Amino acid sequence: MSKALTTRAEDYSQWYNDLVIKGGLADYSAVRGCMVIKPYGFALWENMRDQLDKMFKDTGHVNAYFPLFVPKSLFEAEEKNAEGFAKECAIVTHYRLKADPDHKGKLMVDPEAKLEEELIVRPTSEAIIWNTYKGWIQSYRDLPILINQWANVVRWEMRTRLFLRTAEFLWQEGHTAHATREEAIIETEKMLDVYAEFVEEYMAVPVIKGIKTANERFAGAEETYCIEAMMQDGKALQAGTSHFLGQNFAKAFDVKFSDKNNTLDYVWATSWGVSTRLIGALIMAHSDDQGLIMPPRIAPVQVVIVPVYKGDDSKPVIDEKANALAKELKALGIRVKFDDSDNSRPGWKFAEYELKGVPVRIAMGLRDIDNNVVELARRDTKDKQTVSMEGLPAYVSGLLEEIQLNIYNRAKAFQTEHINTADTWEDFIKVLDEKGGFVSAHWDGTAETEEAIKEKTKATIRCIPLNNVPEAGQCILTGKPSTQRVLFARAY
Amino acid sequence: MSKALTTRAEDYSQWYNDLVIKGGLADYSAVRGCMVIKPYGFALWENMRDQLDKMFKDTGHVNAYFPLFVPKSLFEAEEKNAEGFAKECAIVTHYRLKADPDHKGKLMVDPEAKLEEELIVRPTSEAIIWNTYKGWIQSYRDLPILINQWANVVRWEMRTRLFLRTAEFLWQEGHTAHATREEAIIETEKMLDVYAEFVEEYMAVPVIKGIKTANERFAGAEETYCIEAMMQDGKALQAGTSHFLGQNFAKAFDVKFSDKNNTLDYVWATSWGVSTRLIGALIMAHSDDQGLIMPPRIAPVQVVIVPVYKGDDSKPVIDEKANALAKELKALGIRVKFDDSDNSRPGWKFAEYELKGVPVRIAMGLRDIDNNVVELARRDTKDKQTVSMEGLPAYVSGLLEEIQLNIYNRAKAFQTEHINTADTWEDFIKVLDEKGGFVSAHWDGTAETEEAIKEKTKATIRCIPLNNVPEAGQCILTGKPSTQRVLFARAY
Repeated sequence: MSKALTTRAEDYSQWYNDLVIKGGLADYSAVRGCMVIKPYGFALWENMRDQLDKMFKDTGHVNAYFPLFVPKSLFEAEEKNAEGFAKECAIVTHYRLKADPDHKGKLMVDPEAKLEEELIVRPTSEAIIWNTYKGWIQSYRDLPILINQWANVVRWEMRTRLFLRTAEFLWQEGHTAHATREEAIIETEKMLDVYAEFVEEYMAVPVIKGIKTANERFAGAEETYCIEAMMQDGKALQAGTSHFLGQNFAKAFDVKFSDKNNTLDYVWATSWGVSTRLIGALIMAHSDDQGLIMPPRIAPVQVVIVPVYKGDDSKPVIDEKANALAKELKALGIRVKFDDSDNSRPGWKFAEYELKGVPVRIAMGLRDIDNNVVELARRDTKDKQTVSMEGLPAYVSGLLEEIQLNIYNRAKAFQTEHINTADTWEDFIKVLDEKGGFVSAHWDGTAETEEAIKEKTKATIRCIPLNNVPEAGQCILTGKPSTQRVLFARAY
Repeated sequence: MSKALTTRAEDYSQWYNDLVIKGGLADYSAVRGCMVIKPYGFALWENMRDQLDKMFKDTGHVNAYFPLFVPKSLFEAEEKNAEGFAKECAIVTHYRLKADPDHKGKLMVDPEAKLEEELIVRPTSEAIIWNTYKGWIQSYRDLPILINQWANVVRWEMRTRLFLRTAEFLWQEGHTAHATREEAIIETEKMLDVYAEFVEEYMAVPVIKGIKTANERFAGAEETYCIEAMMQDGKALQAGTSHFLGQNFAKAFDVKFSDKNNTLDYVWATSWGVSTRLIGALIMAHSDDQGLIMPPRIAPVQVVIVPVYKGDDSKPVIDEKANALAKELKALGIRVKFDDSDNSRPGWKFAEYELKGVPVRIAMGLRDIDNNVVELARRDTKDKQTVSMEGLPAYVSGLLEEIQLNIYNRAKAFQTEHINTADTWEDFIKVLDEKGGFVSAHWDGTAETEEAIKEKTKATIRCIPLNNVPEAGQCILTGKPSTQRVLFARAY
């Protein structure tokens, strides 16, 4: 195989890039920090998006679409939110190009086409959406509003990585409006649960649900809930966030409603989002040195059939059997590809589909057909077995579920093994540097200590787990009293 | 009903705006020329998108995603394309805001964060995509590339109208690469056929397939194919275009491939797109003075059940029957809504769903239940009938197909009636001003004459129909010889 991959042990970061590029998921582009999502990567995103979209709709949400641009005066209305994103905004200042008189055939920005007010390319849409909701909400009868949008957003990051941190990315952002604080909090928590269910059951990535500290909170939120996933290098990856926004945006945009008693009050808000970053999490949670490992439930191709031709007359016989099998698998709703292309040999194809992480590979030659069997290989364990064609579709269907479960269990075992407690600073450093993963430790609750720990170790508080049990202890750094442990980790 | 609509006769343009706004499809936004697509409008777009997406995939295409931004140097590479879009580009020049020292709490563009090279917000993606294809294509084995992308694009239009012409709009753009001229032309025509099939069979809007004159061609194309629809005011609306791009973009971006004989040649290209503009076409083709008329196949809600409660004890009885019916309809794949909300009366709801264009309305009261019937109203004809509950779901299913066909036939009859020939200039003016619609007339084939006719009448050549029969004649304006008729119309 010409596409030699870097191994995780050699260079974890290069291994990741190799998988993304050589696995055909994405490519660099001519635009600084922006990526091209290639067809294989986009098919994966479509499967993720469609499942999430279904789950949003099943929980009562509808989709809509709001403008890409946010006028500066709206952008700055919620001050904390604006401050949080101000340093990473792409800004449209002009609306026309003209011929450059000094360079024939070239264009230049027309200085006469300067916008009166600059437009921010949305880094997130609270401002433009709450400015719109203002016109839609008068009374409690107009509530709740449960809207989601699938969109591209831009955050001008200085250091970018394919999928994990790109200047433009695709995401969904839910923006809901409620009559009461309680209802908004219930919504925030409900959507966190939807995210956790999706990431665990479809992406097969176990997560920890928790709450962010004030330091790590979304700019403009009262509380940020999150799910944190663990990568194979022990680092954390924030996989989704759900924000309780209180009345901050309603106040910034003056959105009030009259309740049943005709009393005016500001509307309560939530927002929640996941992005193409999840693809990065998927790759780093499951893949190995031979390539990607796709969870069957969202794999673009679940089963590939590779024919092993010997001599020209074997082709029609094998093709007929393979097409029949593909048809039977499709009838069960399985995404199957029969690769009868003749410009590469079976060995090359085996390596290619291993690299692409196709969960099940079926090889079929003349002798197999004579014996009424196929050779079946699992991507997750690399086990190969000879299986009878009798009842094969049902067997494959069951196997896909088994693989889904197996890679979840494997990731879960890894996660469990890499969540360790530390009770002294020495222990803390040791666990972080030697075992990696998440460290469950006491913290005195102050932003200063959190910052100091980050300075010293690059570890941040990933979350205060939702299922935390109160426990008296002493802060790992300052020795001050603490009432519960929090999870620290180095993070993407 | 409080939502009095402007009638078509009073003010066609205001009637259109009323339907969009009061029908809940879209709303104006705080950003000049940009709209908010509301949940009802977006649900319609989702149905259109999903069907188109299926048709693209059935014809061998895959989806991908390319950056929102196009660096100026790439944008200007294909000169005609660049020239065509230069005057309507949103341009990103800076990547950071900072606190405004003169206005507390306000932000300003940070002059130190000026981009070295300006970024154009894509008005169309040929440039960024062909710059990417350059890295993907070496040999004939890499061809064809059959990629589509669903995206937002920005064209800084001076005069905007909801759906019809907005600064930002949603669309899909297919970008394919081929080894031969013939193959690219076949692709261009195939996608025109896909568009025509979609618009006629799903949107129930009849179209004329044709080719644009050089004047109306896409900037950078060798040939632009189009489908033209007719609105109820007789004006034309270009509903989709498919471009044969020749080797223009391959040459601009130096994209060559080696063929089987190892000869290098430039790659052949097509691009094709339809947008949220189609929603404008849908509205203006079918709707009436009472509101929208949705074609059943893509209607967000196909059937609405409105309960007619009389006294509190009727509610449980009616709700049970209505829910059972809704369940049966859903089982047939019908999109049904049971509106049991108690904050408005049946009459208000009837008007509301008429305004929203729901194809079938079922009203259900206690007496109906006693008689085992419902009252069923068709939106297209406004016919009401009492129908037995026995076999109702199958009846409704058939009725939806009948409505789909009926509104297509109605639009088709209108179209046929409004395509007229003219053989003299006087006739031409008369038909245009009195009958409206499309005028089939001779033209001498020059851009000057086309321009002169446009000056005098505001009518443009919509297309040279694909099914044209050669016919000797004289140009309507200049009297010069002509070999075929073309279609003129005033257009959106």
